[in-house]
Amino acid sequence: MTSIKDVANLAGVGLGTASRALSGKGYVAHETKKRIEEAAKKLSYKPNVLAQNLLKNSSGIIGILIPTLDHCFFSRLVQELESALYKKGYKTMICCTVSMEHGEQDYLDMLENNLVDGIITATHSFNDEAYLRSSRVIVSFDRDFGGHIPMVRSDHRAAGRMAAEHFMEKGCKKVLSIYGEDAREGHIIVGLAHRELKDCLESQGIQVLEDYISQDKFDMRHYSEKAAECLKKYQDIDGVFASDPLAEAFLWEGKRFGKKIPEELKIISYDGTERTRSVFPRISSVVQQIDKISLELTDILTRKIQGEEEVEDKITEIRWQQGETC
Amino acid sequence: MTSIKDVANLAGVGLGTASRALSGKGYVAHETKKRIEEAAKKLSYKPNVLAQNLLKNSSGIIGILIPTLDHCFFSRLVQELESALYKKGYKTMICCTVSMEHGEQDYLDMLENNLVDGIITATHSFNDEAYLRSSRVIVSFDRDFGGHIPMVRSDHRAAGRMAAEHFMEKGCKKVLSIYGEDAREGHIIVGLAHRELKDCLESQGIQVLEDYISQDKFDMRHYSEKAAECLKKYQDIDGVFASDPLAEAFLWEGKRFGKKIPEELKIISYDGTERTRSVFPRISSVVQQIDKISLELTDILTRKIQGEEEVEDKITEIRWQQGETC
Repeated sequence: MTSIKDVANLAGVGLGTASRALSGKGYVAHETKKRIEEAAKKLSYKPNVLAQNLLKNSSGIIGILIPTLDHCFFSRLVQELESALYKKGYKTMICCTVSMEHGEQDYLDMLENNLVDGIITATHSFNDEAYLRSSRVIVSFDRDFGGHIPMVRSDHRAAGRMAAEHFMEKGCKKVLSIYGEDAREGHIIVGLAHRELKDCLESQGIQVLEDYISQDKFDMRHYSEKAAECLKKYQDIDGVFASDPLAEAFLWEGKRFGKKIPEELKIISYDGTERTRSVFPRISSVVQQIDKISLELTDILTRKIQGEEEVEDKITEIRWQQGETC
Repeated sequence: MTSIKDVANLAGVGLGTASRALSGKGYVAHETKKRIEEAAKKLSYKPNVLAQNLLKNSSGIIGILIPTLDHCFFSRLVQELESALYKKGYKTMICCTVSMEHGEQDYLDMLENNLVDGIITATHSFNDEAYLRSSRVIVSFDRDFGGHIPMVRSDHRAAGRMAAEHFMEKGCKKVLSIYGEDAREGHIIVGLAHRELKDCLESQGIQVLEDYISQDKFDMRHYSEKAAECLKKYQDIDGVFASDPLAEAFLWEGKRFGKKIPEELKIISYDGTERTRSVFPRISSVVQQIDKISLELTDILTRKIQGEEEVEDKITEIRWQQGETC
């Protein structure tokens, strides 16, 4: 492989001059610079980026920690984040933590070792302390670490109110609100939507049942089984509020159980990803704006990398998407 | 930050000895090694991984190029690949090329610059020459570059035959086979399945219509529009063979058009990802075994990184998955 020394020799200059000319840092006379560039071209010289990274103490890589890609919300989030980070000059490394025992710790170690310049985390499986111990750049999606780690999330309370209003408008009397076990503990912020829904509906005399789903499994079979179990257990519910894939499972399992949708069962999903719009009937949803969330996460991350210390949490607006299930 | 020099000073040894002890390379007396390790621990010394990578000329990172994560096949493939690569000690960097103009070229440059140790490519948007020019480790999924780039793919001909047999068994007379424009040109190998289906059915006197879908758009709305357009254009078809999301779109749009499924329209999807199993009715599919494909890609990649020159293409078996749509 051609080294910068070969380039310097061919151009008849010193190593330092060649280095200054090719890195664009420091003064080199115009004619000399041109000669060095021609030599580099002639020798097919490629700069050693690993060496450059060592000097800059930066890899230009951002690590994204997510539970899984097997969930329409997270695959969409990663797609948007990758695109937003790319536009800011960063490459994206991913780690799906559900299937990896030491994944999160590995990535925190990589942060300490300068292998990644920052981390965006959207997981819920790991202890907060390990994140908080790190003095490096970490930004959180929908998980409240407190301390120095800023968070971006949707306005979950408004989402819960929005769903409640639509259930009320359609005359529901008994609504099932179903969400992740971790959110139940308050650790994952999305639980706020379900608590707000409950408060709103109960204040109007509408009964709310709550059930929970494991957050380690994301396959549709798991969602289908859970939906079937709930339809058997709570036979007289007339409304369901659940995440997109689970809401979709209620749609299919409801039909399998002979339920008329939306006449006998109203379904509202939270997230409103693309797939809610392409099924029949289309699912009515409260929408998290993944594109805006990704831009906010990327913006906060790059500001922190550039040394900004005080960065505030950001709450993005949600919106209603009328489908045919509520 | 603590340097290895600080560790050497505290342990009272030379820099070379400390380096040998901590890297595990070269001889250091047992007692001395213990003293150095204690010093490293006391000073919270973390090795500079960027410097280590520079020495090894390796980053431990594999780049995965895919068109999008917004497609159940590709999100599943990346999930499986990341898990398989992690077990082999590699981190995964991703690039979704559909939304990035220079994405593929950027990654090929990173390969030349040692920022990634290898690339797995599953895209179809870029010219072959740029890949073939590279002398580094590239492995392809379902794209025949020829030259020194090995390919892993499913047995598409067997897939086409399998689908044809099921259409015949159910008495179909006019089948729509719909696939990507790129596959039509023979560039993307999956087109083999559709050509084999056509040959098999036509040899039995069954009519086959062919239509094509753009491979730059992967959103469900696009699939729904295409399905609706086809149902209008080819009103008397009694069978459809299409990729998972498009087959799903035919399911919903077919219902919207008042078609009884499977009585009036049989649907077979190719890929058979999880979502075909969680809708109602469940979609009958020819299944690509993504887990096996990922293991083969990872195996070939690591063998090539270790210097193996002659690595053969690998064709993985497909299998039938009985649903309720054919």
